[in-house]
Amino acid sequence: MRHATGSPARTLAEVGEFALIAAITDGLPAGDAVIIGPGDDAAALDLGSPVLTSIDLLVEGVHFRRDWSDAQSVGRKAVAVNVADIEAMGGTARAIVVGFSAPGDLAADWALEFAAGLREEAAYAGVSLVGGDLTRSTRDIAIAVTVLGSAAGPVVRRSGAGAGNVVALIGRTGWAAAGLTVLGRGFRSPRAAVDAYRVPEVPYGAGAVAAAAGATAMIDVSDGLLADLGHLADASGVVIDLRRDAFEIPEPLQVVSAATGIDPYALVLTGGEDHALAATFPAGAVIPAEWRVIGTVREASGSDEANRSDEANRSDEANGDSGSDGSVESDESVGESGPRVLVDGTPWEGATGWDHFRPGQRGSR
Amino acid sequence: MRHATGSPARTLAEVGEFALIAAITDGLPAGDAVIIGPGDDAAALDLGSPVLTSIDLLVEGVHFRRDWSDAQSVGRKAVAVNVADIEAMGGTARAIVVGFSAPGDLAADWALEFAAGLREEAAYAGVSLVGGDLTRSTRDIAIAVTVLGSAAGPVVRRSGAGAGNVVALIGRTGWAAAGLTVLGRGFRSPRAAVDAYRVPEVPYGAGAVAAAAGATAMIDVSDGLLADLGHLADASGVVIDLRRDAFEIPEPLQVVSAATGIDPYALVLTGGEDHALAATFPAGAVIPAEWRVIGTVREASGSDEANRSDEANRSDEANGDSGSDGSVESDESVGESGPRVLVDGTPWEGATGWDHFRPGQRGSR
Repeated sequence: MRHATGSPARTLAEVGEFALIAAITDGLPAGDAVIIGPGDDAAALDLGSPVLTSIDLLVEGVHFRRDWSDAQSVGRKAVAVNVADIEAMGGTARAIVVGFSAPGDLAADWALEFAAGLREEAAYAGVSLVGGDLTRSTRDIAIAVTVLGSAAGPVVRRSGAGAGNVVALIGRTGWAAAGLTVLGRGFRSPRAAVDAYRVPEVPYGAGAVAAAAGATAMIDVSDGLLADLGHLADASGVVIDLRRDAFEIPEPLQVVSAATGIDPYALVLTGGEDHALAATFPAGAVIPAEWRVIGTVREASGSDEANRSDEANRSDEANGDSGSDGSVESDESVGESGPRVLVDGTPWEGATGWDHFRPGQRGSR
Repeated sequence: MRHATGSPARTLAEVGEFALIAAITDGLPAGDAVIIGPGDDAAALDLGSPVLTSIDLLVEGVHFRRDWSDAQSVGRKAVAVNVADIEAMGGTARAIVVGFSAPGDLAADWALEFAAGLREEAAYAGVSLVGGDLTRSTRDIAIAVTVLGSAAGPVVRRSGAGAGNVVALIGRTGWAAAGLTVLGRGFRSPRAAVDAYRVPEVPYGAGAVAAAAGATAMIDVSDGLLADLGHLADASGVVIDLRRDAFEIPEPLQVVSAATGIDPYALVLTGGEDHALAATFPAGAVIPAEWRVIGTVREASGSDEANRSDEANRSDEANGDSGSDGSVESDESVGESGPRVLVDGTPWEGATGWDHFRPGQRGSR
């Protein structure tokens, strides 16, 4: 067998599918849940019940650019954004399967570094890579990751928030949007923001802790805090009121704001792709360590309430993130009778318009 | 909310992600295994143990062409090729999650018809669509399907075939390759062959029946019978000898052969993408109904045996099919000490060269 790690100039087509798969799966660690790993028609896992699952696609030119992110970062991000969805249910991610398609003239090293990133983040997140599909594309690189997880405790949906609950957040918001902003303007700093865009820092383990602490609803912050809390408020039939003073502006975001003129609160409140977790807890609950209280849940008006289940069932994403475009669209958090998410008691009307290479693809409703 | 089924000229970008998802998930049936379906960060399923899972990608221009297959057929095929992987483990597919990326200028009706095909085949196969990710791409349509399944009985791997076993087959081979051949030459008939290429006829349920009947090894025939039996023989460290007279040439394949000059046995033995199931059973076992005995398993030479575990672990695909190219490459079924799969006791050297828009992307070894 030829080795896949030869000359850096070799392409996928030259190295070939089987050698590449061998290089990727060689010595792959298998967690406790893995009964059968890569190498058969399907993997077999012991996950108990319920099994949690979600799929996300990353498409070149939409979710990443090869001149903005190295292959290893793309691999790490592909794992992280998926695991975040299991966290947001209060579960623990256990395994992933990965689809990778790329043109035959892609440098084999890019694919190998992507795989190294996958393996690195999977190890960090405690998930096992148990299978995949490697195939040619005509032009774009497209990556699909499906994550499977388990839940030791209660599964936390988006729909359980009640009036009087407190809203709490763990993880960062605005960092990835800040990084994307500077990349879009041709810069590579502040490095912390650019790195945050390349690989989100998902608060692994926090979802299960929140579930055990009695979280009533939870969501992965992929589209932006206001947008995602809007989804949660829609599903729960409530209004969420955030306190602006609950948010500090971290130093890298101050730098980006100063350099670009973008309102730093727009970054923090509407920037996507950091994959923080937002959750609601009963009043008086002990909020787990490292979660910050950022607001409260209020009762919605009667007409909002009547629309709740219809909206929750029909208007949310199928699951996973939405191929988020890094900026919120204000109608995301507006119910048919008014805004679902307020900041200091009023609708957010701040600037959201930083440069972005991905035009939004949201439905109007 | 706008309705997604408006003017046929409307594009994905015009209809929007949320309206499209609503149209796709509206009234979606949920099977017994579904605890939480679409609409949250992840789906939740009750699958028992083990959970079987596999992912497959379908990429426009590689796995399908919009001028050769209608959207509904592509949707049906996306489900079928995945479910076949669970069948091949002796399991029962229960749920799928689907990633779909397409350029914003794609006609919304294409996506809706694709989704209708997904739903149709999912209903036929008895699986529930429980989640997805819908996102923009810059150019290609890329589809990822991950299937989750359960196994009531033993899981059947590729590696369990033993000398003296009989080899049996259920489902069709050569039909999809025949269809692809005529499409590649600009024809649309014989219709049965073209239809077989567009939507494989997977023998749903046959995998679990074979497992219960004591199958020792099993594989999804996606790359072609000789290629896939080569994988099975590699993993099991055996040689498989097929009987040519076990194969009849169906009428549509006779037509294609007559029109193109392609050896019909090349179609049957090396044509991929029909997703038949091939399995081995102990000598004397009662072979389940509709399975046809096509050959026997022989002991490999000593040097082959020594190479077995190494090849099985390192050279197989990660899982799922390989982005099959419809033709076998002869080295797939050749071990280091000789061929792994024989036809009437001799290596297959027949013609495999029909037209195909997808160049092979196999590794040499």
